[in-house]
Amino acid sequence: MALHLLKSFVPVAPTSHFPIQNLPFGVFSDKANHAKRVGVAIGDLILDLAAVAQAGLFDGTHVEYPAKQGVFNHDALNAFMSLGKPHWTATRNRVQHLLRDDVPTLRDNAALRERVFVAQKDATMHLPAHIGDYTDFYASKEHATNVGIMFRGKENALMPNWTHLPVGYHGRASSVVVSGTPIRRPCGQRLPQKGATAPVFGPSVRLDYELEMAFLVGSGNALGEPIPMEKANDHIFGVVVMNDWSARDIQAWEYVPLGPFLGKNFGTTVSPWVVTLDALEPFLVAGPVQEPTPLPYLRDTSKAAYDIRLQVQIKPAGKQEFATVTDSNLKYMYWSFKQQLVHHAVNGCNMRPGDLCGSGTISGPTESAFGSLLELTWSGAKTVSVAGETRTFIQDGDEVKMTGWCEGDGFRVGFGDATGVVLPAHQTNY
Amino acid sequence: MALHLLKSFVPVAPTSHFPIQNLPFGVFSDKANHAKRVGVAIGDLILDLAAVAQAGLFDGTHVEYPAKQGVFNHDALNAFMSLGKPHWTATRNRVQHLLRDDVPTLRDNAALRERVFVAQKDATMHLPAHIGDYTDFYASKEHATNVGIMFRGKENALMPNWTHLPVGYHGRASSVVVSGTPIRRPCGQRLPQKGATAPVFGPSVRLDYELEMAFLVGSGNALGEPIPMEKANDHIFGVVVMNDWSARDIQAWEYVPLGPFLGKNFGTTVSPWVVTLDALEPFLVAGPVQEPTPLPYLRDTSKAAYDIRLQVQIKPAGKQEFATVTDSNLKYMYWSFKQQLVHHAVNGCNMRPGDLCGSGTISGPTESAFGSLLELTWSGAKTVSVAGETRTFIQDGDEVKMTGWCEGDGFRVGFGDATGVVLPAHQTNY
Ligand SMILES: [Ca+2]
Ligand SMILES: [Ca+2]
Ligand SMILES: [Mg+2]
Ligand SMILES: [Mg+2]
Ligand code: NI
Repeated sequence: MALHLLKSFVPVAPTSHFPIQNLPFGVFSDKANHAKRVGVAIGDLILDLAAVAQAGLFDGTHVEYPAKQGVFNHDALNAFMSLGKPHWTATRNRVQHLLRDDVPTLRDNAALRERVFVAQKDATMHLPAHIGDYTDFYASKEHATNVGIMFRGKENALMPNWTHLPVGYHGRASSVVVSGTPIRRPCGQRLPQKGATAPVFGPSVRLDYELEMAFLVGSGNALGEPIPMEKANDHIFGVVVMNDWSARDIQAWEYVPLGPFLGKNFGTTVSPWVVTLDALEPFLVAGPVQEPTPLPYLRDTSKAAYDIRLQVQIKPAGKQEFATVTDSNLKYMYWSFKQQLVHHAVNGCNMRPGDLCGSGTISGPTESAFGSLLELTWSGAKTVSVAGETRTFIQDGDEVKMTGWCEGDGFRVGFGDATGVVLPAHQTNY
Repeated sequence: MALHLLKSFVPVAPTSHFPIQNLPFGVFSDKANHAKRVGVAIGDLILDLAAVAQAGLFDGTHVEYPAKQGVFNHDALNAFMSLGKPHWTATRNRVQHLLRDDVPTLRDNAALRERVFVAQKDATMHLPAHIGDYTDFYASKEHATNVGIMFRGKENALMPNWTHLPVGYHGRASSVVVSGTPIRRPCGQRLPQKGATAPVFGPSVRLDYELEMAFLVGSGNALGEPIPMEKANDHIFGVVVMNDWSARDIQAWEYVPLGPFLGKNFGTTVSPWVVTLDALEPFLVAGPVQEPTPLPYLRDTSKAAYDIRLQVQIKPAGKQEFATVTDSNLKYMYWSFKQQLVHHAVNGCNMRPGDLCGSGTISGPTESAFGSLLELTWSGAKTVSVAGETRTFIQDGDEVKMTGWCEGDGFRVGFGDATGVVLPAHQTNY
């Protein structure tokens, strides 16, 4: 059946991020049932997979084994992820079947529907996975070039290694939070002005967002065993939108020579619904031409970029409306997710289910597609207008919302939101 | 009672790392009981705390609560850590009491001793904690200066930030392994020679060790809430010896601008026994003078360095003997563990029980105290002799052993070993 002809009996608006063509996985709880469990988003509802399993609707299908293992009753997707890609696909296929408008099992059984559906507005979303390790790449050439010019000057903007490998660094897993979690403005050391030789301590005055997407590793590899390119997609469970909050002043002072640390690790926001590679497959496009040709282990002739529209909006405290500040697309990313994963494991580094790998800021070729205020204001040299106000960097009370979606033929495969409001810095007596 | 007068009825050699003055915690299993559980090292034995709890020897003491919670029956120390420092100290005190030569409970009960003791030679040691996040600092001035000269030249050796804050970066938690785990030589990109513009791919030819110690966080802080200096020690559970294996050629090519990544994350070895701050307290000494005076949040007038002798030995394949290549001391470390922890959390970054914080390579003022082959061979310009052979960097089959101890009055408070043998690189067909 052509993708656009698939319909669910659950009503789905044409601009909804969660049609039957998507079916992202997430972890939720609600007032009636405080237990965290695995669900799938459909329209404005969540299909509760623990309840579906309980109702026996996975029995006699390929999902019977995961259901009997209890993986949908977990507080994170890790156990489900660990089963491997055939199980992820089988589960998605079975859920898609149950939700079709020509399948009566749920459609015609009000009592059953009552048990297995929860309204998204009544649910609390949680982090989708226990994140063992979080890595952030730096895979947008436009972003790396922009930041490089500002931090190091035009001559040293793009380092010699950049076109040879996906540059990445380890981030902090403990402070990855789910959409809706407030972010406290960090305190730290910064230079009081350009050219100063001694730092001052206090709240960051250059708080920024970074528009990113991130993939979640689904199945891992043993320590010492690389992941070859042709297997890469089997290891990736799905993708989320991510705000890699960044304190530019703290970062600029601390990052030489070992990389970003306190300028990044005070909070990283992810969207709660993990969109699977199966759902994203129709939106594969060719990525940017890679010149020089990557070394053999990184070479990939398949279409490996995704056409995903990405937006950042800001709502100042007291305002009603969000104003769009960035309008970008994941297809601009130079190094694909597959290349990022293969590079990460080529030295034998072991990936585990639930590991989070950020793309790095996704900037595009035009200014409107710049994925951070650092780039949009060119390090604070100019302002952007935000709902009648102006900004160089984020102010206390600002709410930052990121979203992304693929445009289908009459439907959208979307990611929902990654939002966070910024709280004033912690009071200190020093 | 004076510390040196404390004696156990368990025989302990004067050079043993595990006298009654130490009592480090670890996680072990044995052939008779495959379940991982918490133990304490004493002489050549392990006191099985799960068995001690089972025998009722914690009942009616301050350890009754942890024991009833089952924290000694876990496969990691995290649950015990989460209870907080008063419980760690109470447990150590009770264990110390039970092991004294003037306390008959165990001393005079052969059947009980049979149940609660396991010989170390019959036990398998495991990672002491689930490590949620691993951070590596760069806190030895001698090491940072040496490496800085080699990587960036004498002018840029010590970056301007170095004397103002403990520079650190995030490491990879998944590849932290316990002593005895073999380490596979990593493959990766490196420049074929100085001045080359394009990298080649293959096994690292500059594999190195880094002599480090690391503290394990015991109790954490909430996201957004810093840890003040006066509370820092309450959050630190204990200390281990660590080998931060490093592939210098991979690292040199990849590390600009976001820091070390694949050059480090293929394996990090820790010793299995966690020596508590209580056991280390008698060995506190004043650290190096800090000039300029740190910012108020990092200021600490207490003695915060530890006098811990540190050694690295190498045994080439086929040899019987280890040869000492580094002889250093933790007291040389410029930024204390307390300062590292306080800095790490000052921006609100949340620490969790089990987090591992490495010191960075501990080099001393003399060449014999250089904590890596990079420094000892001055980036390969000269060789070191190792048991009748010479080395610039680590060869396949080499076993690297690190150890550390505090010298008491007739006893040693030691850390045991962190060892690993290097396996040949993974075969690749590209
Ligand atoms: Ca980033
Ligand atoms: Ca290190
Ligand atoms: Mg962040
Ligand atoms: Mg390492
Ligand atoms: Ni866990």
